[in-house]
Amino acid sequence: MNVNPIQLFDSESSTFTYILVADDETSAVIIDPVDHNCERDLAHLERLGLKLAFVLETHAHADHVTSAGKLREVTGARAAVPSGCGITPAEVQLSDGDIIRFGPDERIEVLHTPGHTAGSVSYLWRGNVFTGDTLLIDGCGRTDFQSGSAHALYESVTGKLFTLADATPVWPGHDYKGQSVSTIGWEKRHNARLVNRSEEDFCELMAALDLPKPTLIDIAVPANKNLGLADGA
Amino acid sequence: MNVNPIQLFDSESSTFTYILVADDETSAVIIDPVDHNCERDLAHLERLGLKLAFVLETHAHADHVTSAGKLREVTGARAAVPSGCGITPAEVQLSDGDIIRFGPDERIEVLHTPGHTAGSVSYLWRGNVFTGDTLLIDGCGRTDFQSGSAHALYESVTGKLFTLADATPVWPGHDYKGQSVSTIGWEKRHNARLVNRSEEDFCELMAALDLPKPTLIDIAVPANKNLGLADGA
Ligand SMILES: [Fe+2]
Ligand SMILES: [Fe+2]
Repeated sequence: MNVNPIQLFDSESSTFTYILVADDETSAVIIDPVDHNCERDLAHLERLGLKLAFVLETHAHADHVTSAGKLREVTGARAAVPSGCGITPAEVQLSDGDIIRFGPDERIEVLHTPGHTAGSVSYLWRGNVFTGDTLLIDGCGRTDFQSGSAHALYESVTGKLFTLADATPVWPGHDYKGQSVSTIGWEKRHNARLVNRSEEDFCELMAALDLPKPTLIDIAVPANKNLGLADGA
Repeated sequence: MNVNPIQLFDSESSTFTYILVADDETSAVIIDPVDHNCERDLAHLERLGLKLAFVLETHAHADHVTSAGKLREVTGARAAVPSGCGITPAEVQLSDGDIIRFGPDERIEVLHTPGHTAGSVSYLWRGNVFTGDTLLIDGCGRTDFQSGSAHALYESVTGKLFTLADATPVWPGHDYKGQSVSTIGWEKRHNARLVNRSEEDFCELMAALDLPKPTLIDIAVPANKNLGLADGA
């Protein structure tokens, strides 16, 4: 049976934050926390009696600012981030295949899944995959900034994520339609961006999206490379 | 280790809907689904490859209309509801102590927790409690309509829910502040409505709230007593 994460939502940026609780019901990690929810998230940890071992990021976000630095300060957790994201103040720089351990016996495996950004990773924990903005429910992240690459995203999704077991729950970094979770099997069969499209067709589609520049990108990316802390903080 | 439910949110009414997945990852029940999310929730069940055994209600809601009737029609699930709520078309009428079984080995225990409404129940599953509007995170449901009673709610919370283990995760029927889950222990120590208040003080507080009548009550309650289906449907 799959053990689910606790899924928290930020209604401003439609970002999901996840709390993964260890078998001892005492140790936890948090993935992709959002700055203005810091108090809310600390209250969750307190209510559940959880001690934070790690703050994890899937990438340096362009649409919201992380609370990783603040959570690290308050809780004593370590910050663990993808090595390719330029998040230099984090003590743990993760590469493909790395294992993060917490609690008595928890393992999180790092999958490098570039495309949305060059450094983006996904995390595997107890049969669940946390895909950040690489693979969304019936969609995928954009690939037009931060060294994004539609080619790389196609390869990450079809060549890596889609090799996971069909029943693997997929917990995305965002959703804009009230959806919460999918599975690898469903996305393989139905994802509107990826199914029945060659790599070339997919890249054409992504290039044609012509999305507006994210409002916060010039603030968020530099802030997130500093774990959300003001310079020198 | 606690197995978490899948928590879905309705942003219009701030209602939580829960999907509880059995050990076989095939059978499931849904608690308190919302009418306009019916397609979304069916899509969740489909993506996760789940067959719905039961649609459960914690009470006859006054603020939103259930999709129980429609989900029952589409999926073949049975509707199981508290016997004291006047939801007559449901095939299973639940009383305190009843056990709902689904999947190879799942048990949901029914706790009659009147107060928000006279018929309200909570559900216990794998160490989690689903409290409907009886106990909210740092709050509780109102007690001023549908045969609600502050006395009964006080007794339900302090005399029943607060006897569960401190570590029991509390999954409420609503939240208005982006919070998702609490624990019995935290609520016992901190709940702003209940802690350090005698039953009399609590009843005075609830009587003084003087809340406006819920906008949808005259539509929602009759509809919910018919599982959200139009009369005669
Ligand atoms: Fe992103
Ligand atoms: Fe209610």
